[in-house]
Amino acid sequence: MKLNIAKHEFNEAISNVSKAVAVKTSIPILSGIKLDADEQGLTLTASDTEISIQSFIPSVQEDQTIIELERAGSVVLPAKFLTEIVKKLPSDIIEIEVFEHFVTMIRAGSSEVQLVGLDPEEFPLLPRLSEEHVLHLSSDMLRTMIRQTAFAASTNENSAILTGILWNIQSNRLKFVATDRHRLASSEVEIQGHEPNSDRPIVIPAKTLNELSKILPENAMIDIVIENNQVLFRMENMLFYSRILDGTYPDTSKIIPTVFKTEFTLDTKQLTDALDRAYLLSREEKTNIVRLVSIDEQTIELSSSSTELGKVTEQIEVEGYRGEPLRIAFNSRYLLDVMKVMDTERVHISFTGAMSPIIVTPEGSDAVLHLILPYRTTN
Amino acid sequence: MKLNIAKHEFNEAISNVSKAVAVKTSIPILSGIKLDADEQGLTLTASDTEISIQSFIPSVQEDQTIIELERAGSVVLPAKFLTEIVKKLPSDIIEIEVFEHFVTMIRAGSSEVQLVGLDPEEFPLLPRLSEEHVLHLSSDMLRTMIRQTAFAASTNENSAILTGILWNIQSNRLKFVATDRHRLASSEVEIQGHEPNSDRPIVIPAKTLNELSKILPENAMIDIVIENNQVLFRMENMLFYSRILDGTYPDTSKIIPTVFKTEFTLDTKQLTDALDRAYLLSREEKTNIVRLVSIDEQTIELSSSSTELGKVTEQIEVEGYRGEPLRIAFNSRYLLDVMKVMDTERVHISFTGAMSPIIVTPEGSDAVLHLILPYRTTN
Repeated sequence: MKLNIAKHEFNEAISNVSKAVAVKTSIPILSGIKLDADEQGLTLTASDTEISIQSFIPSVQEDQTIIELERAGSVVLPAKFLTEIVKKLPSDIIEIEVFEHFVTMIRAGSSEVQLVGLDPEEFPLLPRLSEEHVLHLSSDMLRTMIRQTAFAASTNENSAILTGILWNIQSNRLKFVATDRHRLASSEVEIQGHEPNSDRPIVIPAKTLNELSKILPENAMIDIVIENNQVLFRMENMLFYSRILDGTYPDTSKIIPTVFKTEFTLDTKQLTDALDRAYLLSREEKTNIVRLVSIDEQTIELSSSSTELGKVTEQIEVEGYRGEPLRIAFNSRYLLDVMKVMDTERVHISFTGAMSPIIVTPEGSDAVLHLILPYRTTN
Repeated sequence: MKLNIAKHEFNEAISNVSKAVAVKTSIPILSGIKLDADEQGLTLTASDTEISIQSFIPSVQEDQTIIELERAGSVVLPAKFLTEIVKKLPSDIIEIEVFEHFVTMIRAGSSEVQLVGLDPEEFPLLPRLSEEHVLHLSSDMLRTMIRQTAFAASTNENSAILTGILWNIQSNRLKFVATDRHRLASSEVEIQGHEPNSDRPIVIPAKTLNELSKILPENAMIDIVIENNQVLFRMENMLFYSRILDGTYPDTSKIIPTVFKTEFTLDTKQLTDALDRAYLLSREEKTNIVRLVSIDEQTIELSSSSTELGKVTEQIEVEGYRGEPLRIAFNSRYLLDVMKVMDTERVHISFTGAMSPIIVTPEGSDAVLHLILPYRTTN
């Protein structure tokens, strides 16, 4: 393998695939990036067995020569060092040449880097997927839905299935659900290209979807290919493979109340800022408990207290108050997490009593729903 | 104590004094900030016994009312929580009122924060300094000299005196020296207002000077009051006290060579970038060793290697080469640290052989000098 490549494009592709490089691994080759060069371009592949990412740099892009190939070939190079050194090379064009025993020379300006390469034959192959079940979704919608739900997934590996996001595909609708048993987030959207006969819910690790989120292009359509234990996100010049989690996701439909005793609407920013201040103090007590009580039909009060530090009290105006007076306590961190992903100016909150779930939705939308269990307290 | 105060100014003063708040302390009051309010304004004080900072907010600034005083008084409030909550309060004016037992109420918009205050009488008093020995130095020069030397001070508390920067005051010149036994940095400047009879070198902790650096105003004159075991930096509306280190600073004048076997000048950025790349690889071997050899009178070569990863080789053009051919090894991290504080476009490097100190100076200046001991190697 011998070629000249534009630094900018090479750097970008390395940065994209590097999210799949194994950090701590007993299989040395997985800490590398595989390069395959041919007439069409250069393909970069990385895999930590959980995620695999493949990025393709075409030789010519928009009439610009990106790669000049002299000799096709393959090699695996150490990812961490490659990532850092390529960024810092002193010229816009980089020469890569692979010699015997995969010794690789990278030249740029007056710099010469000699790397110990590994045999590309030892690099794991990417899964081959049939194209029987393919969904199409815009990258922006996918990124939004991940953002709205991933934070509510469990981080406890003991309940492995809950570390994932449930994808429920029914009647042309795709719904994401994530829960850690204390809170739940769901978001749904209409989709295209769906075949109703092959429906089955799948669970994809939330961590993996967060990684995907970072490299999703803006404003593009993504093909999502679903197989038994693998899902492939296909973008232009990039493939992203993730494992599908084994196991059955718990039925969460029954814990979401449908009849409410108290509900109101309020300003997203006002609530977020007041919560943020109450959280500051609640954090000192480790529990993050904040109390919410209704003062009248126009006002609620948030408060938190710490024996050592003192007390924070916040009054917030509400609109459309309906139902009984309210007195409830909850983990302020959970509600703050919800407020962070709220894109509407106002939010709607519904309660079914001091011991029942709190439901938060963006005003005027039923596609997104957040649930928080209250903190069971006696006063 | 009861007053209204502008949030912006209060916040800024808190942020300045908070650098002296004790983080881990067995004396609870030292984790607080003392507030003293009178007709003139509000004084904030924090002290961790190593550093003390006092910041004064005048009631009126440039014809603007900053503080409306209703009742003078004092209180000590918990620093960490105060810092965080004041930033987040919802209005530009904050009301502070102290009740019995130092219970303090902070009100802003619809927020009410009640804090458990402490007795200001228990807060340590600031040292009283006679004004016998006062230097005057511009804040920008002081910041520059700290930046040029502090990084070379030791971080090892076992050689306590070397964790400081030596201030040598002689014949109207102030010279800073810092060394950790592997490298040395010095910087000197002419000063005013100095009394030659009271000369003695002092050593101030480098960490403290770095903290001072962060709150030094731009373009102002600083009074520096030196006493037996304390130094005071007096700025407009701010006092910064630091402890002076006990002990005798080693005599470093003899380790700086004055006759050189090889010397040349080169481009600061070219050397920094090449070193940066060589460092990346040298770091993998933990030693950070980079080798420097002269190729001819126009070119030097930097290189580093790692058995696992490979080798980086860099060629750099030099000018004004004088003396013998060169072959030397050193810790690349040390030279990178020096390059980061070099403000001139070109640097001059001088050598006295493979086992003798390397001297780096900015081109055309003898006020700043950096010394690095080479790595003793046999090849």
